[in-house]
Amino acid sequence: MRRVAVIGVGVTPFGKHDRSSGELFAEAAAEALADADLSPGAVQALYYGNVVGGEAERQLHMGPQAASILGIPWVPTTRFETACATSHAAFRHAVMEVASGVSDVVLVGGAERVLNLPTDEATEYFAYASDATFEQPAGLTFPGVFALIARALMAKDGTTEEQMAHVAVKNHRHGALNPKAQFRKEITLEEVLASPKIADPLKLYDCCPFTDGGAAVVVVTEELARRSRRPVWVLASAAASDSMCLHDKKDLTRALATERAAQSAYRQAGLASEDVDVVELHDCFTIAEILATEGLGFFEPGAGGIAAEKGWTTLGGKLPVNPSGGLKAKGHPIGATGAAQIAEIVTQLRGEAGLRQVEGARVGLVHTLGGNTATVLVSLFGLE
Amino acid sequence: MRRVAVIGVGVTPFGKHDRSSGELFAEAAAEALADADLSPGAVQALYYGNVVGGEAERQLHMGPQAASILGIPWVPTTRFETACATSHAAFRHAVMEVASGVSDVVLVGGAERVLNLPTDEATEYFAYASDATFEQPAGLTFPGVFALIARALMAKDGTTEEQMAHVAVKNHRHGALNPKAQFRKEITLEEVLASPKIADPLKLYDCCPFTDGGAAVVVVTEELARRSRRPVWVLASAAASDSMCLHDKKDLTRALATERAAQSAYRQAGLASEDVDVVELHDCFTIAEILATEGLGFFEPGAGGIAAEKGWTTLGGKLPVNPSGGLKAKGHPIGATGAAQIAEIVTQLRGEAGLRQVEGARVGLVHTLGGNTATVLVSLFGLE
Repeated sequence: MRRVAVIGVGVTPFGKHDRSSGELFAEAAAEALADADLSPGAVQALYYGNVVGGEAERQLHMGPQAASILGIPWVPTTRFETACATSHAAFRHAVMEVASGVSDVVLVGGAERVLNLPTDEATEYFAYASDATFEQPAGLTFPGVFALIARALMAKDGTTEEQMAHVAVKNHRHGALNPKAQFRKEITLEEVLASPKIADPLKLYDCCPFTDGGAAVVVVTEELARRSRRPVWVLASAAASDSMCLHDKKDLTRALATERAAQSAYRQAGLASEDVDVVELHDCFTIAEILATEGLGFFEPGAGGIAAEKGWTTLGGKLPVNPSGGLKAKGHPIGATGAAQIAEIVTQLRGEAGLRQVEGARVGLVHTLGGNTATVLVSLFGLE
Repeated sequence: MRRVAVIGVGVTPFGKHDRSSGELFAEAAAEALADADLSPGAVQALYYGNVVGGEAERQLHMGPQAASILGIPWVPTTRFETACATSHAAFRHAVMEVASGVSDVVLVGGAERVLNLPTDEATEYFAYASDATFEQPAGLTFPGVFALIARALMAKDGTTEEQMAHVAVKNHRHGALNPKAQFRKEITLEEVLASPKIADPLKLYDCCPFTDGGAAVVVVTEELARRSRRPVWVLASAAASDSMCLHDKKDLTRALATERAAQSAYRQAGLASEDVDVVELHDCFTIAEILATEGLGFFEPGAGGIAAEKGWTTLGGKLPVNPSGGLKAKGHPIGATGAAQIAEIVTQLRGEAGLRQVEGARVGLVHTLGGNTATVLVSLFGLE
């Protein structure tokens, strides 16, 4: 298998937009191609991630639409959907296409637009990523899923609501440094704890927002990477799954798919969790960040909450997590999220993250989760 | 890149089912795994195709659900959607995963369930595969798209309504020989021509039906194939695109994406159109079969209709097309269609197609089209 690198990244501002997801993707893609110093005509395959475009925009078959908008309608396209892990899944398959020699230049990313919808409609569409037979009829939307996980962790490990609140405070502090974040406002621990209950014990500030946005990255061969300005190498890209329904999981306090994907990625790269300098991970709810930092092997089971409380995961801490602001503050345009996380890690490893730069970062990890912790992608990136 | 083979295929009966698409896929997958003499535990990756499950079944994120139903919830899964070409796209990526050495055994397929919906609702969801900005607001559903293409071909080449009707008669005759086909009833030329107009010049019997069903195939390495009962080799798998909207296409009488994908597939396999013995192609409307037989290089532009009229594409003719009955008679469960076409060609090359067997077939071609002729997949299969 050939070595693969990312040589261009692009992300739209996250927030509310008055454009279709196809146009948002095109904006991000144009930025990524310019960053890679490539014209659209250099693209040999387009990997496109979107989750609820059928429901929210009456648009399926988005790949050729995106290619048409970019002026490259002949390029083979594929649309991927694996709930919130969508564009990270697309990225993993794009890496396979380049590594296997099928293509030399793949444009991969995604976009989502939902903020024009009424909130209850967006909530309903997001819930389609949980099981329609057992969970949706019970009214189990995602805040409920993660509230159950939070309760299980609180009971088993002594994880506290204050520890979860620390995650929100940190990610808002980081997001305030990110010009493209949806929320660029710091918040206090007291504000988080006093915010309205959404699904007990989760409060408003424990939850990431609905977001419109697009993100794209350019994946190329080693040969093209060596001719580029500042390549970032893909050291590993791994996927793993777990049972679809909560009731089939043996232990809600274990992030099984995260553990499996992380072990697979570390093995591919010949690295261990201690080698990672900077992390973008899937904090759809604050408890998800705590659980992920444990599943990725950064902290012992039960210590993820303590790490947040002690500031180990903040910018300047021993392992900065979500310097972009994370899903919590940067925003969560579901089909774009994985690609945006990858864009952030590439930016960090290039040393171009400005006020939110993690100094000296040489190895970065991206973790993206789909559905009821059922799909997880983990990729590792590094400098030479 | 490693050689890749299909060693198992499974297809549910096509028609109306009272089960979810996930269950339909599982039924097909169990048949495919039994055919391959593998247990579900041997599967290393699951590639799942579905198009309108979000809209029709309130279910996204179907990959891990399918894995859970099959009792292999830990297997990495990806859902693909490229309109009607969905599970053929999934197949192409699965071939890449095995060819590149990432996995040795990939289960790939798809399913769809729409017949429980009111017809106007199903029509609306299918239309999401056309452009939401320009085409849907104009009321351009797919019968309209292919009626426009038919009119253009009639004007340019002298293609006739009778020639289109011959395609329907042939595919119903073939479908009557397929125990899993939705329509197992022969029809006459007169019945087709007298059937109600849907979108002039297309009549009811020029159109494929809505269908529920699932299909799956097992893709493996050369090493595993050599230990199997009757492997069929993947000689090529290619994708190509064309503009999303009809108004961006320079010539409605050219199947550009089909031409591009076919040329790419022939090049990969080192074969020409003359080498093909049996074809499953995308006859969502009778005119689509005529256009595809030209785009794939079997007949000169303008001669596709003549070929249908003269019986060259019937069982026993010089190049049997759609021995399964095609989408027209076998049915079109959109997310399952590509995998079902592949299953038919594998069955033909194994010599196990019973009454619809194409005698002595050694090379087979599968062509699947998505949306307004915007996405096309072409794969070639062969015996050793």
